[in-house]
Amino acid sequence: MKAGFYQFNPSFGKKEENIGKVISALGNTDIDLLVLPEFFATGYQFTHCSEVAELAEPVPDGYTTRTLSLLSRKKNMYIAAGLPEMHEDKFYNSAILTGPEGFIGVYRKTHLYLEENLYFTPGDTGFRVWDTKAGRIGIMICFDWFFPEAMRTLALTGADIVAHPSNLVLPYCPDSMPLRCLENKVFAITANRTGTENRKEGPALRFIGKSGIVSPKGEILIRASENEEALMITKIDPKAARDKTLNAFNDIFKDRRPEMYRTPHKE
Amino acid sequence: MKAGFYQFNPSFGKKEENIGKVISALGNTDIDLLVLPEFFATGYQFTHCSEVAELAEPVPDGYTTRTLSLLSRKKNMYIAAGLPEMHEDKFYNSAILTGPEGFIGVYRKTHLYLEENLYFTPGDTGFRVWDTKAGRIGIMICFDWFFPEAMRTLALTGADIVAHPSNLVLPYCPDSMPLRCLENKVFAITANRTGTENRKEGPALRFIGKSGIVSPKGEILIRASENEEALMITKIDPKAARDKTLNAFNDIFKDRRPEMYRTPHKE
Repeated sequence: MKAGFYQFNPSFGKKEENIGKVISALGNTDIDLLVLPEFFATGYQFTHCSEVAELAEPVPDGYTTRTLSLLSRKKNMYIAAGLPEMHEDKFYNSAILTGPEGFIGVYRKTHLYLEENLYFTPGDTGFRVWDTKAGRIGIMICFDWFFPEAMRTLALTGADIVAHPSNLVLPYCPDSMPLRCLENKVFAITANRTGTENRKEGPALRFIGKSGIVSPKGEILIRASENEEALMITKIDPKAARDKTLNAFNDIFKDRRPEMYRTPHKE
Repeated sequence: MKAGFYQFNPSFGKKEENIGKVISALGNTDIDLLVLPEFFATGYQFTHCSEVAELAEPVPDGYTTRTLSLLSRKKNMYIAAGLPEMHEDKFYNSAILTGPEGFIGVYRKTHLYLEENLYFTPGDTGFRVWDTKAGRIGIMICFDWFFPEAMRTLALTGADIVAHPSNLVLPYCPDSMPLRCLENKVFAITANRTGTENRKEGPALRFIGKSGIVSPKGEILIRASENEEALMITKIDPKAARDKTLNAFNDIFKDRRPEMYRTPHKE
């Protein structure tokens, strides 16, 4: 199957323009699973909760989810993409999965980063995996990667591929995903954005690009540069993620010993 | 405080010679915590359980533990070092901690690698942390590093420094320890060995050296080359590992959400 990401520089608040950019980058490209950045249609740096209220949408009935569902149906492809979600009286940093069958599901970001804590509620969905025609797809969002428990939970739940919509500003993630994939023997597709945002006092946010796809062996299969806007695609076999053996004696899942991972902390 | 490791090429079965090499490398060096490789005094590649029976020792009454305890007392330093342990009718791949007060404790390797599974019993101690004058020291052994739960459990238990006696043959660990340290904000001291062993049919085991000390920010403070025999030491402040904040909004331990890390697997 063909998996890819679109790395680009969204304009804050201009949903139609940003979604239009995705559609025109896609053109007639043949792809089975496309991952888009966190908040790909709205931009990232909110300055007031009224802005969040204006741009967040219900899922699956909002504009962005409806548009991506339609695109997925029309092009017979899966899309994982981040958006601010409005649900009851709360806002979440969410990502949706759409497919040939339309809307599939939503994940709400578990670990909020920096000022996201001012505007969003920590996710309540937990880490979800959907069994699709393009493999078993799990989602985590941006800073979730920092916590080894995030990809571990997705992998133990059965994910072959971790879709990872991101707006990375710290430098660590691109060179860390090989270990995240190796320690879980899964594929990861990180779709990051480029550019800067400087919508409030203080230093501008600078997004680091370097989106990439990493294999269960920890190999970087493709990686974008820091600043380019690019649709990049590679062939992968999701089933390669189901063999958790390292050698004749070691299987990294069977070798786990959860009874030894207890700590004095209550969990 | 001064922390370091001694990377060298032990001769199989020659305990006195190997321990002598450590003592002569140390000379009058001033050091507070020294980490030695896994099986540093015996060599690694056992070919029969009778060999294990011959070289394994009780802890703390065996030759190696008594010798290192004496050395620790004499030099007023802590030592973490790996050895095959005989306990009741079982053998463990263990590591001991000794200090100015003598023998302190033992850790038995949780995740056995390759043919270690033929000769050793999986450890029953769990991941332990000792509160010493040189900081809170935890121990994991070699392949344990591959499992994010190992260092996570040590860090959550309070470790400032993870002593990591190793006999690494896979290439991944040296470049992975920065993420292990960053995700837990702890120091790690990996003491690996050099050289090859070819004591049974099949390809020789080639140990990759590259011992190193990594900071809680994921910086490699010192690293040995692949083949050199070297005592390397650097100053560290163990208390730097106690600040788990990333920024004004994020504390990587307080941000953890264990209720979200549940999987369909029974743990």
